[in-house]
Amino acid sequence: MKNPLLKGNFDFVNSLDEHSCKSVVIERYAHTGIEVWEDSVIKEDRVDFLLNGKKFLSVMCIAKHQVAHIVGFLLSEAVVEKLSDIDDVILSDDGLQVDVIAAVSQSGYENLFREKTLTSGCCIGVTGSAQKSFECSYVKTKYKVAARTLLEKIGEFNKPSALFDTTGCVHKAQLILEDGTEFTTEDIGRHNAIDKVVGQALLEQKSIKKSVLFVSGRLSMEMIVKCVMHKVPIVVSKAAVTYQGLKVAHEHGITLVGFARDEKMNIYTHSGRIMQ
Amino acid sequence: MKNPLLKGNFDFVNSLDEHSCKSVVIERYAHTGIEVWEDSVIKEDRVDFLLNGKKFLSVMCIAKHQVAHIVGFLLSEAVVEKLSDIDDVILSDDGLQVDVIAAVSQSGYENLFREKTLTSGCCIGVTGSAQKSFECSYVKTKYKVAARTLLEKIGEFNKPSALFDTTGCVHKAQLILEDGTEFTTEDIGRHNAIDKVVGQALLEQKSIKKSVLFVSGRLSMEMIVKCVMHKVPIVVSKAAVTYQGLKVAHEHGITLVGFARDEKMNIYTHSGRIMQ
Repeated sequence: MKNPLLKGNFDFVNSLDEHSCKSVVIERYAHTGIEVWEDSVIKEDRVDFLLNGKKFLSVMCIAKHQVAHIVGFLLSEAVVEKLSDIDDVILSDDGLQVDVIAAVSQSGYENLFREKTLTSGCCIGVTGSAQKSFECSYVKTKYKVAARTLLEKIGEFNKPSALFDTTGCVHKAQLILEDGTEFTTEDIGRHNAIDKVVGQALLEQKSIKKSVLFVSGRLSMEMIVKCVMHKVPIVVSKAAVTYQGLKVAHEHGITLVGFARDEKMNIYTHSGRIMQ
Repeated sequence: MKNPLLKGNFDFVNSLDEHSCKSVVIERYAHTGIEVWEDSVIKEDRVDFLLNGKKFLSVMCIAKHQVAHIVGFLLSEAVVEKLSDIDDVILSDDGLQVDVIAAVSQSGYENLFREKTLTSGCCIGVTGSAQKSFECSYVKTKYKVAARTLLEKIGEFNKPSALFDTTGCVHKAQLILEDGTEFTTEDIGRHNAIDKVVGQALLEQKSIKKSVLFVSGRLSMEMIVKCVMHKVPIVVSKAAVTYQGLKVAHEHGITLVGFARDEKMNIYTHSGRIMQ
């Protein structure tokens, strides 16, 4: 296809299909006991963005509407000045690679490779990369926690802090160690909150290999990667988990607990660490 | 200070102070009319991370606990192998620069500069950079929308979609143009959803310079930057706004509306576009 159309089959409202969600079998815990349950999680994919044949970025996203996505991105980053500068957009058959053929000025290229800023919710580097220290990692600890203890701690953790009450705008992370020591912090970014709380525990010369990490936000892949890297065996959130997060947790030995609220929780992987 | 301590004054639970929140005067709209109100917003800052004197990343975060933050980050990214490899951490007087002096292996440096992946909630590039096309931009349109119309649209927009109902894990973005045309999309990342919906409108050859952008997530700086770049004059969310988001909106002529829910909304900047 050639501009000015650049139109494919834009069915623009996400339907529930194999591109956007995935069925998984989970264990759902409540005071009445554990039941096995079929649940759906969001499915995100790594989509490669290319400009004139050269890859410049990978984006974790729902692999739909990739043409609109890359066009909006390049225009918002001032890499491409206007739509008519785009000659063509080529989407690979699997939908995981999208290449824009466009006239790009020198300043446009500079904007593309400008210094990066890590913003709220963002994570880089090791995330999903073929990095040995991550790939070979498997968290093997037999450390266990009672389900009732988790539910109690979750109730405490989910209470809004003074800063959340005031601004409605922070994520919280808490590490609870085997000896009961707790470290808590907040930040605008989920990843920042985790980095800060792990850093703090390590600076206090505590081992976190037998601990539970509570976070307030969604458990997507990069959060689980941090657990793997630090060997934190159990991670819990009141929010949802994503499919890639679940996959990494499964493959690297992390116990993943989501929707932990109202005295219930969903156990997605490695439930053996949670005692009834 | 020298390792193994690396300890400063870790008051680790965020208190409500000038580092974490900021008072602002806003207009609060409800059916009973508009009142002026003093509100608090979260204050994020750009903190520069350095390794052995060389800057490698800027992070938008609450400028507190920077030592724990960079230590946790470098260990989770496998740049530094263990805490004892860190010789010192130097924090600038203003708290906006933190430099780790550490023994780093070749593979550690490689992990630092590994290919980046944009994850859910992340944005790069133009965000806050000294980029001319952004710095000189000011959205001047006199386009106006009735407050009642906004509240109605917000009510519609805030209803969960089928995908959210199923997964509990997506952000939504919607553009409503002057002629009533609506574009809606969802993604795991707020920034992705905005890129997709803007891209779609442009691919349909619609002007978005008289439009309202509704988003489901927090309005931090990078979301507002996208509005500036695309000249979308009004942006609305049911969630909170951040101080840097508010600052950019103020300086670049964007009407910023937060906490738009339950038939109320907070107008943070350029309220002239919203008619009573």
